[in-house]
Amino acid sequence: MVNAARRPGDGPRQAQAIFTATLELLAERGYDGLTMEGVAARSGVHKTTIYRWWTDKDALLGAALLNSALLELPAPDTGTLRGDLLALTGHVLRLLTTEPSASVITAALTAAGRPVLSRLAHEFFADRLAGELVIFDRARQRGEIAADIDPKLVVDLLAGAMWTRVLLRQEQPPPGFAAQAVDLVLTALGWSG
Amino acid sequence: MVNAARRPGDGPRQAQAIFTATLELLAERGYDGLTMEGVAARSGVHKTTIYRWWTDKDALLGAALLNSALLELPAPDTGTLRGDLLALTGHVLRLLTTEPSASVITAALTAAGRPVLSRLAHEFFADRLAGELVIFDRARQRGEIAADIDPKLVVDLLAGAMWTRVLLRQEQPPPGFAAQAVDLVLTALGWSG
Repeated sequence: MVNAARRPGDGPRQAQAIFTATLELLAERGYDGLTMEGVAARSGVHKTTIYRWWTDKDALLGAALLNSALLELPAPDTGTLRGDLLALTGHVLRLLTTEPSASVITAALTAAGRPVLSRLAHEFFADRLAGELVIFDRARQRGEIAADIDPKLVVDLLAGAMWTRVLLRQEQPPPGFAAQAVDLVLTALGWSG
Repeated sequence: MVNAARRPGDGPRQAQAIFTATLELLAERGYDGLTMEGVAARSGVHKTTIYRWWTDKDALLGAALLNSALLELPAPDTGTLRGDLLALTGHVLRLLTTEPSASVITAALTAAGRPVLSRLAHEFFADRLAGELVIFDRARQRGEIAADIDPKLVVDLLAGAMWTRVLLRQEQPPPGFAAQAVDLVLTALGWSG
């Protein structure tokens, strides 16, 4: 686990290089093939530096999943809820369908049976949701949606449709798929732009 | 692969016992630990009988995933689209959250990086969708929804929300979660009962 005195975003100067190496190795070799030694070799950062920040590979993997630029989901700010949801849903779809993120996500799913990965998945999606809430706060302030709308349900419907089509059905969504999903949900929210 | 002269539902008299043993072993030992010998021992069906029907473990696993009673998703027929979608979404949620189906699904996901499992996932969800289409056909005939509604998008949104909340967020959905999702989507479809 990360030392409690440090904030989650903290890390050595070379943190992004370490995170990239960690996720690349996870994608290539799976959870069992991921080692601190491998990350040191791939990132060019000395093993003692890595161990100074993360006590074991689970702590490192957690930090990499949460903080790697590779899986970032920045909250868009386009000026409308529709624009923001299109940007967000399109971004999720790109992460699922383009490399290297697609392989990293498949590898993380492949390890999903392990308790440590369950805990990390919970943290990862809670963290991403927290970042997405601002979209709905701004939409409420602009009077675009009612106060009682449940952002988590909206995000689960939209992100869930992307995951289902790509990872469960193993299909390439047709052009406009994300927009169709967003417009259906916006209709339900009584959104009129 | 299943012999082309046989229909997918065909199989020896003991088919369900073989399918149950196959999925139990997948859940307990993972894809690598699943063997024809293990299935024979667990099901009590002689190995030569199993090999007569399925040439290798991938063919057997495909048949088990598609045809086991454990993962059946029978199309409900409650008389209304809302009733049918509540039943369907509730059933998906139960499969994801109760044993033994929850462990089987996690184990199948855990093997998701393998091409054979990708192909099987595609077939599995295409087969389940084909079964669900009748719900929407009947709703159209009853005049509950417009002719141009995309049932696949509706199913992906609803099933996706269940998968996202349970398997990605690793959370127990609150009571009424499935109904909330169904009612949001029905509002979008202009459904009035």
